[in-house]
Amino acid sequence: MEGCPPGLEVSQKLIQAELDKRRPSGEHETARRETDQVEILSGVFRGKATGAPICLLVWNREVDSSPYEEIRWTPRPGHADYPAYVKYRGYNDYRGGGIFSARLMVGVVAAGAIAKQILKRVGVEVLAHVVEIGGVKIKREPSIEEIREETYKTPLRCLDPEASKEMLRRIEEAGREGDSLGGIIECFALNLPPGVGEPIFGSLDADVAHALFCIPAVKGVEFGAGFKAARLKGSENNDPYRVENGKIVTETNNAGGVLGGLSTGMPLVVRVAFKPPSSIGKPQKTVDLRSLKEVEIRVKGRHDVCFIPRAVPIVEAMVACVLADHLLAEGYVKT
Amino acid sequence: MEGCPPGLEVSQKLIQAELDKRRPSGEHETARRETDQVEILSGVFRGKATGAPICLLVWNREVDSSPYEEIRWTPRPGHADYPAYVKYRGYNDYRGGGIFSARLMVGVVAAGAIAKQILKRVGVEVLAHVVEIGGVKIKREPSIEEIREETYKTPLRCLDPEASKEMLRRIEEAGREGDSLGGIIECFALNLPPGVGEPIFGSLDADVAHALFCIPAVKGVEFGAGFKAARLKGSENNDPYRVENGKIVTETNNAGGVLGGLSTGMPLVVRVAFKPPSSIGKPQKTVDLRSLKEVEIRVKGRHDVCFIPRAVPIVEAMVACVLADHLLAEGYVKT
Amino acid sequence: MEGCPPGLEVSQKLIQAELDKRRPSGEHETARRETDQVEILSGVFRGKATGAPICLLVWNREVDSSPYEEIRWTPRPGHADYPAYVKYRGYNDYRGGGIFSARLMVGVVAAGAIAKQILKRVGVEVLAHVVEIGGVKIKREPSIEEIREETYKTPLRCLDPEASKEMLRRIEEAGREGDSLGGIIECFALNLPPGVGEPIFGSLDADVAHALFCIPAVKGVEFGAGFKAARLKGSENNDPYRVENGKIVTETNNAGGVLGGLSTGMPLVVRVAFKPPSSIGKPQKTVDLRSLKEVEIRVKGRHDVCFIPRAVPIVEAMVACVLADHLLAEGYVKT
Amino acid sequence: MEGCPPGLEVSQKLIQAELDKRRPSGEHETARRETDQVEILSGVFRGKATGAPICLLVWNREVDSSPYEEIRWTPRPGHADYPAYVKYRGYNDYRGGGIFSARLMVGVVAAGAIAKQILKRVGVEVLAHVVEIGGVKIKREPSIEEIREETYKTPLRCLDPEASKEMLRRIEEAGREGDSLGGIIECFALNLPPGVGEPIFGSLDADVAHALFCIPAVKGVEFGAGFKAARLKGSENNDPYRVENGKIVTETNNAGGVLGGLSTGMPLVVRVAFKPPSSIGKPQKTVDLRSLKEVEIRVKGRHDVCFIPRAVPIVEAMVACVLADHLLAEGYVKT
Repeated sequence: MEGCPPGLEVSQKLIQAELDKRRPSGEHETARRETDQVEILSGVFRGKATGAPICLLVWNREVDSSPYEEIRWTPRPGHADYPAYVKYRGYNDYRGGGIFSARLMVGVVAAGAIAKQILKRVGVEVLAHVVEIGGVKIKREPSIEEIREETYKTPLRCLDPEASKEMLRRIEEAGREGDSLGGIIECFALNLPPGVGEPIFGSLDADVAHALFCIPAVKGVEFGAGFKAARLKGSENNDPYRVENGKIVTETNNAGGVLGGLSTGMPLVVRVAFKPPSSIGKPQKTVDLRSLKEVEIRVKGRHDVCFIPRAVPIVEAMVACVLADHLLAEGYVKT
Repeated sequence: MEGCPPGLEVSQKLIQAELDKRRPSGEHETARRETDQVEILSGVFRGKATGAPICLLVWNREVDSSPYEEIRWTPRPGHADYPAYVKYRGYNDYRGGGIFSARLMVGVVAAGAIAKQILKRVGVEVLAHVVEIGGVKIKREPSIEEIREETYKTPLRCLDPEASKEMLRRIEEAGREGDSLGGIIECFALNLPPGVGEPIFGSLDADVAHALFCIPAVKGVEFGAGFKAARLKGSENNDPYRVENGKIVTETNNAGGVLGGLSTGMPLVVRVAFKPPSSIGKPQKTVDLRSLKEVEIRVKGRHDVCFIPRAVPIVEAMVACVLADHLLAEGYVKT
Repeated sequence: MEGCPPGLEVSQKLIQAELDKRRPSGEHETARRETDQVEILSGVFRGKATGAPICLLVWNREVDSSPYEEIRWTPRPGHADYPAYVKYRGYNDYRGGGIFSARLMVGVVAAGAIAKQILKRVGVEVLAHVVEIGGVKIKREPSIEEIREETYKTPLRCLDPEASKEMLRRIEEAGREGDSLGGIIECFALNLPPGVGEPIFGSLDADVAHALFCIPAVKGVEFGAGFKAARLKGSENNDPYRVENGKIVTETNNAGGVLGGLSTGMPLVVRVAFKPPSSIGKPQKTVDLRSLKEVEIRVKGRHDVCFIPRAVPIVEAMVACVLADHLLAEGYVKT
Repeated sequence: MEGCPPGLEVSQKLIQAELDKRRPSGEHETARRETDQVEILSGVFRGKATGAPICLLVWNREVDSSPYEEIRWTPRPGHADYPAYVKYRGYNDYRGGGIFSARLMVGVVAAGAIAKQILKRVGVEVLAHVVEIGGVKIKREPSIEEIREETYKTPLRCLDPEASKEMLRRIEEAGREGDSLGGIIECFALNLPPGVGEPIFGSLDADVAHALFCIPAVKGVEFGAGFKAARLKGSENNDPYRVENGKIVTETNNAGGVLGGLSTGMPLVVRVAFKPPSSIGKPQKTVDLRSLKEVEIRVKGRHDVCFIPRAVPIVEAMVACVLADHLLAEGYVKT
């Protein structure tokens, strides 16, 4: 990470705390025991950022590549195996998906830990939670306070206990069937000052969406009323202004906190749709890259039935990184 | 535009043809007579790109700023007026939305005309059409051939005549009420070779989504099955591989032509949700920036009831620009 | 220009004043009557920058391309004609050197005018003058005050009247011979705060040197003692620190105001060596690109015998742009 | 390093060979026993680049920070200590110069090793040698063959044995006096195709100069005739074209292989002036940052009397990296 303000409090512990949120918490998730211990190699001196680039290292110790050897020539449906094979002309490291593995998000979560420290300087907070898994939606919107306090205490990072129960049931069922489930995560950024973002090609929503689509398995992103806004009339969708405690606010937040690529001062609200994990135990049809013959594969190895709960800190980290970049570049935080 | 391959056919006529697709075609759209005549200032010599930067100029001749003077201190709900005022500390050009006006998309469409020429060199084609307006969805998916041949012959850029009739009825109704309507546009990129895109932060879908969210009023973007993918099981969502005419293809295209940030070789499919235009004739609540008193405004000026049909060439242009950039950068087209 | 702070005073007059410094002032310079009238197309409203991109237009009205037609296939020695022909595969606009013409520097000088306004906000000043033409060096170093007040009042932008006389004599002589002369320009940036620059690849000297080598005909750049520093001992070259009026300064300035890529707080001092103009009346040997036969050419058209005086505002502008970029990016000026 | 073509041969051994060229070879250089063992962490699989980012790690094991504690508040003249202290508001890691240490060039040399592999694909070769140390210049220009074969066999990386003897004598003398010496390195890039470079701000010479000024202690850069070109007439400086073996070449190479920011097809020739090392044993005047009192320091620690010989592979690496970037970006090497 470059551009971290000198004097910012950065520690191994603080970064580790974020990484730990990404670790599997239940049996529906991968059997890998990923300890993901982070080491700080540079850029921090006596607990503070020096202003120099911060280099972090997380060793990927427990690697068992054997299951991947057999999929070398038979690309897994839904994975990047086939386009990666073409792109890199067969030189790609096919083991474990290589750079297309969701494990790469470890670095993003670590960076996000530092980004959150930067955001703290201006009082900005990023919070995410699960709103849907396997077609089961939450029935009630939790309060910001609940999300802040409870999300990481729940196994599914979901604040609706009733919905969570049904989600868990479906996850277990999908697990038994050798299948997998996707879901939707909602993320808030609070206390963003109005006017953050750069028109046109530095639009805040565009940059946030870009970062979120860089997370493996993301297939949709929407802000505020999102796709539903397309069905509203202008008079329904426009958020009227009013004054609250001497501050200009909007009565509703269909905009999701962003207008014309600029933050409005209202909470940034973004929802991210993840497809189900591609690696499933069920037999699937694919093609042998050598013979171009159609074959059947069963993906072995250790895979999540549903990684949505583990993706919550990743979504937070991506959003935090984009916001920190904008706040630094636009002079809200002194480098 | 920089990086245009020398020798590429570029002409005023060719760019003008794209710009003309963006012009209002019906009475439900803005009353401005925008002729949008493009001039080529540099980078083209004897009908071919020279390799030098191409500078295009479209004068914004017919400007009537008078209606904007009265909204100077009363930000329009749903517009960037308020965050722009804060960001630029009151120095922003408030007339007509300034750089937040959708008119800025003229430049994007012009650039897209040239991008499409670049794409042609590798046989890539970008096509868009309207799939929903004011809550009315198309009932049948048109074929690619229909979209290619018919889209710009229809007033709403929509290939379902039954749905179009109902859309038009709602647009007229909203117009009478001084209200506005949003909608959804679907865009295809055909014949993309597999492997285009750069992991992680140059993911093809991330770059396309970024460009699309830079279009004013876009609130959601999804690829392939999109938000619906979050409700599918892995076994339903994964696209099985098979061989067709010696080429590896997938049976379904839930991925929307992109996996792990790389093109798969299947059509890129992206849907874009637009909120309704913010400028409506109905009275709205806002705040006077000087007094912080709540006031009511009626937005005058010339505005679209529904700009979805006019946004079709903008969506195409944005996608074309991103694809051209990737194909150039990744060596598919020689600069 | 993007990123101009809103509220900055920007006017046609202010930019024109800088452009006028670049215009030919003597008979030794090109016979073209370049009026170089600048128009502001966007980004300025009521005399202040709005924060939106500033677009300037300078028409190149008086174009006589006829002399260039004959050099289409016979590249001029010392010009970019031949590499441009290869690079652009014959599609390059060969008239007047196209984008390799020094006329492109009009845009740089215009941008520099705005950059200087930004620098003014933090009290930074950029001043250049001629220190050598045709092998004639100035005998005495002028004071900063002289450079500030007198440079643009002298025909050669040179503060040593004796040296100027001899320079002028050599320019006239070279003109009579159909030949041309180069020279050296020295540039100062005053009042830069210490610590501006970003290690390693955003080093201030590296960025300044980059910009200067982008000026056509520049063949060498050195800071402070420059090439002479290579002959000094450490004890001679190191600038000792001392305190002056409560401020840390150095006794000497062999560093030229930059250490480790960061400004030291002392004046930035950079010297730029220009080769003589390549277009000369004397016959020269070249090759016909069609036949690969060796031929002789005499370059017609209107050319400077010596453009060093006209390059002074270009050097200033390039340095000003780099400094303004750094000061904005590093938070010294609020965008 | 990102963007390395898949299939490129990359090995620990190959990178180590370049790093070893940077290690001290004589007693005039630092007493640190820097083994600089490189480990490949990612991006290489079975001896070939995979196309993924290549991460290399060189531990800085033998660190003795004690001598630096005392210079914490007394910035060393000629070092970045003082501007770094201001820039980072006292949070900078002052030990060993931190990110301003020449040790950072280890990474550049490692990257250069891979860049050279990329260049090999198109037959481009980068070679450097010492042309001046402590004011002693080489008397005869060595041939390219000599530079290629002999440079790294000589202790001073200098091909003139007579001059080398005198250089060595002066280095020893300076060492006895607790002083230091600078010098000049010349670098060639051979077999560059004509037309590499992007006008204006991607000029090849500008990018090479930028990279070279990023090396600590560089104070001047010139191409071809360089500063001497400023004293030549156009008729002397222009390089006439002729045909040699069916190829267009120039008779002379005053341009140093670059015109208008584009390679000409002739050897790229660049000279780099280094100031003497700032860390010297002699007492020097500085200021205590706490009291603002003037004090005297003697810099302890382990320092080079003259690092010019060790800078030769750094210059090669920087030039190789810039050329590889250009050749990749401009489509000469397929990624």
